[in-house]
Amino acid sequence: MFCRCRPGNRAGKPSAGYRACRCGADNRRLVRYRNAGCGWEKAAVGKKGLRVMQVLKNGDRSVSGALEMLLNAEAVFFDLDGCVYFGERLADGALTLLEWLQGRGKMIRFVTNNSTDTGAQVAARLSHMGLKTPSEQVMTATELIGLHLLKLYDRTTLKVIGSRSLHTALERAGHRLVPLYSMERADAVVIGRDTAYDYSKLQAVLEEMDKGTPVLATNPDLFHPGSRGEKVPETGALYSAFEAITGRKVNYFGKPAPYMFELAMEHCGIKSPELCVMIGDNLQTDIAGGRSAGMKTIWLYGANRPSPDNQVPLSCRPDFAVPDLQSLSARIE
Amino acid sequence: MFCRCRPGNRAGKPSAGYRACRCGADNRRLVRYRNAGCGWEKAAVGKKGLRVMQVLKNGDRSVSGALEMLLNAEAVFFDLDGCVYFGERLADGALTLLEWLQGRGKMIRFVTNNSTDTGAQVAARLSHMGLKTPSEQVMTATELIGLHLLKLYDRTTLKVIGSRSLHTALERAGHRLVPLYSMERADAVVIGRDTAYDYSKLQAVLEEMDKGTPVLATNPDLFHPGSRGEKVPETGALYSAFEAITGRKVNYFGKPAPYMFELAMEHCGIKSPELCVMIGDNLQTDIAGGRSAGMKTIWLYGANRPSPDNQVPLSCRPDFAVPDLQSLSARIE
Repeated sequence: MFCRCRPGNRAGKPSAGYRACRCGADNRRLVRYRNAGCGWEKAAVGKKGLRVMQVLKNGDRSVSGALEMLLNAEAVFFDLDGCVYFGERLADGALTLLEWLQGRGKMIRFVTNNSTDTGAQVAARLSHMGLKTPSEQVMTATELIGLHLLKLYDRTTLKVIGSRSLHTALERAGHRLVPLYSMERADAVVIGRDTAYDYSKLQAVLEEMDKGTPVLATNPDLFHPGSRGEKVPETGALYSAFEAITGRKVNYFGKPAPYMFELAMEHCGIKSPELCVMIGDNLQTDIAGGRSAGMKTIWLYGANRPSPDNQVPLSCRPDFAVPDLQSLSARIE
Repeated sequence: MFCRCRPGNRAGKPSAGYRACRCGADNRRLVRYRNAGCGWEKAAVGKKGLRVMQVLKNGDRSVSGALEMLLNAEAVFFDLDGCVYFGERLADGALTLLEWLQGRGKMIRFVTNNSTDTGAQVAARLSHMGLKTPSEQVMTATELIGLHLLKLYDRTTLKVIGSRSLHTALERAGHRLVPLYSMERADAVVIGRDTAYDYSKLQAVLEEMDKGTPVLATNPDLFHPGSRGEKVPETGALYSAFEAITGRKVNYFGKPAPYMFELAMEHCGIKSPELCVMIGDNLQTDIAGGRSAGMKTIWLYGANRPSPDNQVPLSCRPDFAVPDLQSLSARIE
């Protein structure tokens, strides 16, 4: 097991949300569970910010620094939407960069908060865009939350709000599902993005919360951009009603919590997070999430170059900031 | 038109949310509209609190003070659930108190955030419990939001999420309704409690908000207690998802906003709010709402007598606090 301290942290100084920097796995699990949900959010917004200018530094130096960091890494994790692809189009330079990394023996994983599709479904979409991807390279919240629940509770009885794929993935992980409206007691309720979400499901989960049943969401995202650029409601938007009514925060599994990154590292057989680089366009999920797992991070700030007046919370501060994947792939030899 | 200053306010000192204490109606309307929504909420929570002990004073003196205040009033407004009735049972002493008030020529109105039923439907329920009530005495958010929209925009084109009764009441007020999923442009979206609420409605309203269409909710309540004491999701819980996604507050019409009280006063032909008393069990809606309209208020604190350590925000501070209607009716001659 790895220590939660960031490389460069003074010995004994704990990372945000952790009681101590000792590497003891049991102690770490306990504290992590206590902090699931609001803890990560607090960590992401509660720190004194740094001006974006300090992060962006000199653009050119950032690109070379980021490439050097990639060369020293064992595994590189990518966010998908807004990073590797936009809508149905592969990002410029994505293919070149991925081939270059694979050619140098780096392990690649795609880490996504998608709570509707399985890894195979996402991999098929990537292949359709021209990026041939084995499904085991895609780590989705849909599939991994079942493994996370195994670690938390062992095999358990669940009620679920979410896609057909989420139901199937949870069953495949060994959990027993009971219908949402059944009188049978569940050990936990799992919420993912559910296009069949309605008032009666809201009422049913509320009754479970009243009984004290823990609720775990696949991811905290409020929306994702649709094919026409419209806002498509995500899991976080659905559970905001439960939070508003009960005044209690709903715990979540996906980015910026570190769980999915840790499962991805286990999958790669890597124990030291500083040997991994997370690349993504979202400071609050990709960068804060990578940092929460102890990884190095590269932020793609895209076409909307942020104003130097903007503040970046410490917990979201990337190691390097570059415009996009093209700026990296254009400089590789 | 009446001045927004509370009686006893120093001349020139504005009430919370108002720019000045001058009585000019136009200025007042402008400022009120700007403050609709979050303004009232801020007023209800943002002030330095007072200890409950200061509010409760001596219980016996509160009862006699409250009765004297009722004798000096021209109109008495009641909240319903948790005040005049509990579930399907009329509150002890409610009938005696109401007959006593009517015998002394006081006008009675029931002011409820109910966004599902019309006044006639609520009046029928009251009559079934033994309290014969003309439907025009019941002021529901369902029916009155149509009048409020007439004042804001004149007759207008609306898209609606809500009960059949809400649709009918809006049409009766003279507005034109277009289907939620229609491509036709609406001037505003109205949201009430809707047991047929679902993911596609969430998506449709989100698209309207993206186009800049204003959204007005009937009431801000997050839930109301069901017949088994369970939490029944209310309008506020439904629109919390829109607020979470867009980061924008949704304006609302019902208590604690003053609009419903003002329509009730107009209905009674009363121009001075200090001639009205609002009686209710909810500090955040009934008492803050009555105060926001400039009325006197009596808080029924019920069986759960609050701890003296509790803080009551200034904006929710009632004139008198008594346990229930029975404590008032037991002392009338």
